[in-house]
Amino acid sequence: MPLKVSLAALPGMPAVQPGDDLARLIVEALDRAALRLEDGDALVVTSKIVSKAEGRQADLRTVQPGDEALRLASLTGKDPRMVELALRESVEVSRIAPNVMVTRHRLGFVSANAGIDQSNVDGSDDHALLLPLDPDASAQRLRERLLELTGAHVGIVISDSHGRPFRLGNVGVAVGVAGMPALVDLRGQPDMFGRILRISVQGYADMVASAAGLLSGEGAEGLPVVLVRGLEYPRIDGRAADLYRPPEEDLYR
Amino acid sequence: MPLKVSLAALPGMPAVQPGDDLARLIVEALDRAALRLEDGDALVVTSKIVSKAEGRQADLRTVQPGDEALRLASLTGKDPRMVELALRESVEVSRIAPNVMVTRHRLGFVSANAGIDQSNVDGSDDHALLLPLDPDASAQRLRERLLELTGAHVGIVISDSHGRPFRLGNVGVAVGVAGMPALVDLRGQPDMFGRILRISVQGYADMVASAAGLLSGEGAEGLPVVLVRGLEYPRIDGRAADLYRPPEEDLYR
Repeated sequence: MPLKVSLAALPGMPAVQPGDDLARLIVEALDRAALRLEDGDALVVTSKIVSKAEGRQADLRTVQPGDEALRLASLTGKDPRMVELALRESVEVSRIAPNVMVTRHRLGFVSANAGIDQSNVDGSDDHALLLPLDPDASAQRLRERLLELTGAHVGIVISDSHGRPFRLGNVGVAVGVAGMPALVDLRGQPDMFGRILRISVQGYADMVASAAGLLSGEGAEGLPVVLVRGLEYPRIDGRAADLYRPPEEDLYR
Repeated sequence: MPLKVSLAALPGMPAVQPGDDLARLIVEALDRAALRLEDGDALVVTSKIVSKAEGRQADLRTVQPGDEALRLASLTGKDPRMVELALRESVEVSRIAPNVMVTRHRLGFVSANAGIDQSNVDGSDDHALLLPLDPDASAQRLRERLLELTGAHVGIVISDSHGRPFRLGNVGVAVGVAGMPALVDLRGQPDMFGRILRISVQGYADMVASAAGLLSGEGAEGLPVVLVRGLEYPRIDGRAADLYRPPEEDLYR
């Protein structure tokens, strides 16, 4: 039989509130879908619901943009309060253009708007949602709590959707990982003719996030959790931080 | 029941030879795995086997590196003949560093080594495999031939594996698309609270390529075809070329 992988988006996840036990909400949604976690499963959870559970909402009415935020807001045409929040979440501004603000996030990745989201919060324009403080730690806690509730050792990817230089369209990326590898190193494996592959490292957790993104969409669907079954990943406990190219190795900084 | 997508890597694909009818080889592999194509399925096929079927091997012993190739080979430490081939396949050199040569390919994307592959060709160091001349057209031909053989309308992604600025690890990308969208435009869809999402375009075919890459690996496994079933994509006939950001819109050129 062929090697198979299946993905299932969990229906009926409720709107997540600050303080919610995300693992319990996920187990309840699995139950309703007659699914049971198994060792080696992976769960892909959008950063949005992790942030909500962790209370990472910001009230824009309380944000005072500083001089740099006002300057960048005028260059980009963006809301100065959103720019201020993005600067607070970032360590370096990478590119600025009309409608574009790309920064290196304090967590280490490069993205637009520091991953801050103004959609899907509560229906008003006054709230924004920041990424979890430490999404690798959030993934680890979720993994441990799911083990407690179900007895299953699963991999966790906390996903977000990023644009890319060179290519159009957003794709899924991992911003938090636990219980599975972030990078899978194929270096040194022989290819079909026995030659040793020289460089071949897969951005594995990003590929898992992209696969799940095919189901979860980004709009009204509200499918923030995808169960992935059948992956044959090495039992390595990776972190999303493994995926971030150090600035000194980045030719496009 | 939850929204489900399944991926199956076809076992037993033979080593592809120049002139092979790839569609027939795929249908035979599907038969052996007791799988039958259905309308709306997607097939992800590595560019490597498409190139082999199209005879895109180059014999490095016949390649004469020019002055620019010799110069870049000395800066990168790469084989001057491989650099020469990469230059012939490219319209612009983007970045050069030890072990790194990134160019804008004549097809429009930016990648290392112009997508030229020295592994998995025939076991010698003297051969390299170029990308198909026109992978969007290759995808279209494969789609039409599969329709002829099976009666099923399927989407095709011809995939490759690319590195990325900012992030470590290669991920799957589409270099050829037919019968399905390359980009899925979610702009204008309301989010959960009715707000209109301002910018949300998914690099859909790239995400499909990444999903399939989780099964196909890159080494000795030899699983170059993945059947994806259950995707709910709009019936748009996209092209991989849709995914390439025009240089004038690229802040990282």
